[in-house]
Amino acid sequence: MHIVAIGGSDAGISAALRARELDPSVDVTVVVADEYPNYSICGIPYYFSGDVQPWQSLAHRTHADLEATGMRLRLGTLATRIDAAAQTLTVRDQAGESKIAYDELIVGTGALPAFAGIHGLDTLGPDDGVHVIHSMGDTFALDAHLTQRDPRTAIIIGAGYVGLEMAEGFRARGMRVIQLQRGPEVLSTLDPELAATVHVELLEHGVEVHTNTTVTAVEKTDSGLFVRAEHLGQSVTHTADLVLAVVGVRPNTALLEDAGARLGAGRAVVVDEQMRTGIPHVFAAGDGIVTHHRLLGVTYLPLGTTAHKQGRIAGENALGGQRRFAGSVGTQVVKVFDVVAARTGLRDHEAAAAGFAPVTSEALADDHKRYYPGAQPIAIRITGDAESGLLLGAQLVGRLGTETAKRVDTYSTALFSGLTVDQVSDLDLSYTPPLGSPWDAVQVATQAWSRAQTRAGVLA
Amino acid sequence: MHIVAIGGSDAGISAALRARELDPSVDVTVVVADEYPNYSICGIPYYFSGDVQPWQSLAHRTHADLEATGMRLRLGTLATRIDAAAQTLTVRDQAGESKIAYDELIVGTGALPAFAGIHGLDTLGPDDGVHVIHSMGDTFALDAHLTQRDPRTAIIIGAGYVGLEMAEGFRARGMRVIQLQRGPEVLSTLDPELAATVHVELLEHGVEVHTNTTVTAVEKTDSGLFVRAEHLGQSVTHTADLVLAVVGVRPNTALLEDAGARLGAGRAVVVDEQMRTGIPHVFAAGDGIVTHHRLLGVTYLPLGTTAHKQGRIAGENALGGQRRFAGSVGTQVVKVFDVVAARTGLRDHEAAAAGFAPVTSEALADDHKRYYPGAQPIAIRITGDAESGLLLGAQLVGRLGTETAKRVDTYSTALFSGLTVDQVSDLDLSYTPPLGSPWDAVQVATQAWSRAQTRAGVLA
Repeated sequence: MHIVAIGGSDAGISAALRARELDPSVDVTVVVADEYPNYSICGIPYYFSGDVQPWQSLAHRTHADLEATGMRLRLGTLATRIDAAAQTLTVRDQAGESKIAYDELIVGTGALPAFAGIHGLDTLGPDDGVHVIHSMGDTFALDAHLTQRDPRTAIIIGAGYVGLEMAEGFRARGMRVIQLQRGPEVLSTLDPELAATVHVELLEHGVEVHTNTTVTAVEKTDSGLFVRAEHLGQSVTHTADLVLAVVGVRPNTALLEDAGARLGAGRAVVVDEQMRTGIPHVFAAGDGIVTHHRLLGVTYLPLGTTAHKQGRIAGENALGGQRRFAGSVGTQVVKVFDVVAARTGLRDHEAAAAGFAPVTSEALADDHKRYYPGAQPIAIRITGDAESGLLLGAQLVGRLGTETAKRVDTYSTALFSGLTVDQVSDLDLSYTPPLGSPWDAVQVATQAWSRAQTRAGVLA
Repeated sequence: MHIVAIGGSDAGISAALRARELDPSVDVTVVVADEYPNYSICGIPYYFSGDVQPWQSLAHRTHADLEATGMRLRLGTLATRIDAAAQTLTVRDQAGESKIAYDELIVGTGALPAFAGIHGLDTLGPDDGVHVIHSMGDTFALDAHLTQRDPRTAIIIGAGYVGLEMAEGFRARGMRVIQLQRGPEVLSTLDPELAATVHVELLEHGVEVHTNTTVTAVEKTDSGLFVRAEHLGQSVTHTADLVLAVVGVRPNTALLEDAGARLGAGRAVVVDEQMRTGIPHVFAAGDGIVTHHRLLGVTYLPLGTTAHKQGRIAGENALGGQRRFAGSVGTQVVKVFDVVAARTGLRDHEAAAAGFAPVTSEALADDHKRYYPGAQPIAIRITGDAESGLLLGAQLVGRLGTETAKRVDTYSTALFSGLTVDQVSDLDLSYTPPLGSPWDAVQVATQAWSRAQTRAGVLA
């Protein structure tokens, strides 16, 4: 039995680890395009901030750790073609092209940076001072730029998770940072009422934030990089020594498309809950595939946590298992300087689009009893279904140290379990004055939602 | 409509608040034995440590806040007799004895300190230097002792939540602290393997801990207080300027017993899930009543969080509601110096006694990615049912700052929802490198449990 996994990131490695864990007799080969398997891509911003040194620390496991599990790593090896009938994978490495026979194949080729139609991003590169940050190769290129050319000004296109983390990273290096965001507020994955707190945190740390700014082109000139944008109907230009584009990702599906896989939500590869592509003996996992979501059905929501779970399931099922992916509820969290912003489930407009009857309320609740030193408010928005009373989603913003990141997990567990908003108020949550309240902040927010519903006369 | 609540602590006040919230036209009277309604008894240790000053800060709500809700407070008023047929409550205050007519009565008389058969505790008091800490009156008595007599040595009998918090409080004042614990390890609500970490933390902060030490008597002599104990078959004596006894509580049931209520688990008053005592128009809530537990059925587990919930339900049902208490899962957390210890659900021996087939495993998991500064391990013990795979309980010990207090809530939410251990591993929990891992510590522990089960061949 020979299982071949393609991809050295979360999905591919998780699949290989799981297969070796369950059956140490099975041969497992992981085909990795670069030389850096099992690196924490989510950790790259902390390398640039200086929190993580050296870059080798970003490895979840070292090369030696991985090989100790008994898996074989084929580094610097690009998978170019799947022959599903012959059950072979064509690969290209320094030695040229060759074929690897497989019994079961797991594809975890992930995603690629999106360029959002911005002119110049597809042609300019690290040598021009224009960067993306999606791989260790990108990391080294940006690192070289910072070290060798000491840029003093950076424009970050995008204000999502990585964009915000990189703003912090560049500021930690003393650089001037101009952050350009298409939407009306940073962190568009949160309601603007909450994301505004993140915006203030960015300003307080000297990041120059420009919202409602749609970048149209990046140009290289003798006097630096020009970023041209539309801002409320006006053309504006920002200049900098360095441009980092973090405007999202697109699933990397070419290999599976060529082999006959179907594309679905977000133009990602369709798989069932067992990570089967429909191509015999070919599984897929990670950022290249659709996401089974417990509230939305099939969607596209590439996240590292999900890729780990999907990979693990693919690895088990490649061995003959029947494990099903239990589904995402879209839980996400980001630290931006000293603020933590988290969400799980659906926001109001997402829930409405999915056919729910959402109502959203907001509450401020202290992270612990106010009489004990250091209490800080957490802003929490609850979205629930007015008809069924079901919890649909929660968004939280609190200061670092308020356990906001793990409070969102109470909501995500409730969502996973299909609890109503009222049932969250019934939960038996932990309390000690330095770390909570008799009604935890989580429940102060759900009680506020229920109270608003009662007042509105929607629920009894 | 006149609702009378007895008790100024969590249950009575929660009931009164809920009734006024739901129906601002209803008359609500709260009969409070002392002058301190709605104080956070859980916060008292932080008054002695100096973290909370002045003592008035310990009020969840001020007297004025409470009266602003429209409830009437009868302070310094002891409830002495319920006449269920006449629907009157006899009370005694400075003016003498009188009767209050009620339409619905809610009894929240709480619990009293237990003395565990220790000779002398029933006769010696604050004037002798022997204290309990269960009310604001106790607090003032201890405060006066500390202020006026400046004791340098304290013996704490008991090493449960309050005992440990008071050890920290006394150490913060520079006092020598001798902590005597009957069982083989401190914090007997946790498995000794985890509680040992708390023991070490106490030692590192200069607390003199004596386990396996069963106190038999407290004696007052001219040369100080003598605490006599049995330690592994030997008689030992400890001396100190001050003795604090924190050896548990017993439900305060006299009022309801006299009115014909039944006693059940822990000799607490039996109520149904709607907080009805069976006596017409008489509800009860809080530390004086049995606890409906989602895993154990009816038990006795007095906790402030539970009292708040029960009180709220009693207040709603006194107005004609049919709300049911959703049940405790026994979630508890304590901070001891810089360590946080939490539990929810059942420990192995408790689960076995309740008819489950428990298996318990332990894992160490970092609170966040190790490459990011400040990562610390959390020790987590998972108890699951070998036959059904159901999660039965979790215990966690981590350093302050590891979000251990809110990580236990993921387990408590899972327990509430009846999830299996495997389903906890499937949860979509939040991740960002400074605050978590792709598989959260919560899931590293459940995966370890499942792996041990697979190895044992108990589950497929």
